[in-house]
Amino acid sequence: MKLELEDVEDFARGAAFLGAGGGGDPYIGRLMLEQAMAQFGPVTFVDIEDIDDDALLVPAAMFGAPTVIVEKLPNGSEAEKALQALETFLGRKATAIMPAEIGGVNALLPVVLASRLGLPVVDCDGMGRAFPELQMVTFSIFGHSASPLAVTDEAGNTVLITARNDADAERLARHTVLAMGASAQICCYPMSGADVKVCGVRGTLTLAFEIGRTIRIARESHKDPFSDLLSYLERTEYYGKCKILADGRIIDVRRETRMGFAIGTVKIEQTGGGRITEVQFQNENLVARSDGQVKAIVPDLITVMDRETAEPITTEGLKFGQRVKVIGTSAPPILRTPEALKVVGPRCFGLDEDFSPIETL
Amino acid sequence: MKLELEDVEDFARGAAFLGAGGGGDPYIGRLMLEQAMAQFGPVTFVDIEDIDDDALLVPAAMFGAPTVIVEKLPNGSEAEKALQALETFLGRKATAIMPAEIGGVNALLPVVLASRLGLPVVDCDGMGRAFPELQMVTFSIFGHSASPLAVTDEAGNTVLITARNDADAERLARHTVLAMGASAQICCYPMSGADVKVCGVRGTLTLAFEIGRTIRIARESHKDPFSDLLSYLERTEYYGKCKILADGRIIDVRRETRMGFAIGTVKIEQTGGGRITEVQFQNENLVARSDGQVKAIVPDLITVMDRETAEPITTEGLKFGQRVKVIGTSAPPILRTPEALKVVGPRCFGLDEDFSPIETL
Repeated sequence: MKLELEDVEDFARGAAFLGAGGGGDPYIGRLMLEQAMAQFGPVTFVDIEDIDDDALLVPAAMFGAPTVIVEKLPNGSEAEKALQALETFLGRKATAIMPAEIGGVNALLPVVLASRLGLPVVDCDGMGRAFPELQMVTFSIFGHSASPLAVTDEAGNTVLITARNDADAERLARHTVLAMGASAQICCYPMSGADVKVCGVRGTLTLAFEIGRTIRIARESHKDPFSDLLSYLERTEYYGKCKILADGRIIDVRRETRMGFAIGTVKIEQTGGGRITEVQFQNENLVARSDGQVKAIVPDLITVMDRETAEPITTEGLKFGQRVKVIGTSAPPILRTPEALKVVGPRCFGLDEDFSPIETL
Repeated sequence: MKLELEDVEDFARGAAFLGAGGGGDPYIGRLMLEQAMAQFGPVTFVDIEDIDDDALLVPAAMFGAPTVIVEKLPNGSEAEKALQALETFLGRKATAIMPAEIGGVNALLPVVLASRLGLPVVDCDGMGRAFPELQMVTFSIFGHSASPLAVTDEAGNTVLITARNDADAERLARHTVLAMGASAQICCYPMSGADVKVCGVRGTLTLAFEIGRTIRIARESHKDPFSDLLSYLERTEYYGKCKILADGRIIDVRRETRMGFAIGTVKIEQTGGGRITEVQFQNENLVARSDGQVKAIVPDLITVMDRETAEPITTEGLKFGQRVKVIGTSAPPILRTPEALKVVGPRCFGLDEDFSPIETL
């Protein structure tokens, strides 16, 4: 598909839904993408099956605290410089760009890069949602290395990291980004087309656009956006098990910024009284419990949305008194394997529960 | 000249003298150099005039807290990996290696690298002594950029930094080295032969060797090593203004590790009583005051030495009760220009005094 200027808002809304509360508010990314597309034209989303096995695919992302990017604005050329550094090191040019995560602002920034360079974007990512850490991608679940990894800040400083393992890459990149003021852009996990055919979460860019479009059309035609959203998701290959976990009013938000993460809980009282649903988050929503019983748990997606407009609300936007619905959605099967759960399962976030698929809860 | 295995100890002692209390204890560097030379043979020191103008010269150094290198030992191949990263970025091979600073362990590590690679070492450096920060080199005084700069740790992690200015390069490198455990090796300030002919401090490797040799021969022939050292220095082109600033016993040492630096003061009571000389340091000795009056100040060199053997004592080796002499030595003229004093003068270390040459104090 071709993403046109007028599609950007739908794409951003779908990306916010897939962010599961995290991934950063897509607002800045949307402005950047609209500006880039106004200047450089539409961007093509290419199916991974149409990519050559020996193509060089480079995931791009914003790295750091999502709360910072809205105050310390990117200049727009960071990702290009990061990509150049990677290309110099690898001795070859990228064939196409892809998002590392489809949730939040990180769905949009790789499209900005692709637009500026006139490159296509591969229609897949490494999370099928958003996660807070660099190594929480299907790429590393399948044994690919995060490095060589390039980080560029808005002043044009570029740091290229080659690390012996992804834990070291994460630590070095995290320190670098702190020295850059807690927000920078990275290109990492360079892979071949053949690699991404195995480990990519497929079709997620088109999915984000379709989710955003479904919600908009339902609003415009005065239908219930939630029932249209759920019936759209039920027809998808990966996100078919979905339901409304709560419908009510926010009666408590606890949130603190700790170790560079937004950590906390939100409590929702069911309309009509009684049942309390509590959602616990670390940047992303991790687990939803109703009266103490688990209703959905990471890597399945939990998204809090405005109960009238179905606009997704990121964890930093949660407020006392908001009327919301909480949607739980099955994660793609590639994130639910035993190998994947070692990297993105509940224990990786310090939770005491094991993963249970949403359809069994 | 050719540095042979049996010359290493003299070379290391002279480097410790030029370290002016800092630059790291050369002990680990000496062991590494002896091992490298036993395996790979002697290393040639080449006069800068014998280097082609278009040669690629790469300064190498240990970066971080000198106190850490003695606990977290290098594996010996770090500098090679850092150099490789730089060469890949620049698209050409280094012609020769040089020290960024001739003081302390950093005089020896570039010779280890050269020995392992069979490359010559240029007989000059960027400080003519030791300084605590990356940009405190004649290279930056003459407008050369610290980056591209490569940092490698003992695990083999490599970080290549290209920064818009040297302050950013220093900050990014400092954060990187902290993430690597506060000690790593760097290659930086890649320059041409023509550049180094203008900005290098000349003949400092031979100088370090001659200083160490002079002290050893004086000891062996039961002469006073201090009078031989001073008369040797008086005959050199750059270090000719020198004197004994204090001769006594250490009665107080205050030292703390702050922001990755060893910061503190040492007090020496003159033999025969009365006069107290206080030396203030930040890794290197910065200023010596006798009864409150400045006797020598950075960039001139202040070195505390054992009063019997004339073995230089680094700031981390200072202890209560040690009997010492403190030697003050003029810095090379290239460090005393108004431009240089903006980079390595007293104000750069937070001191309230302006620079006064030792010969006027």
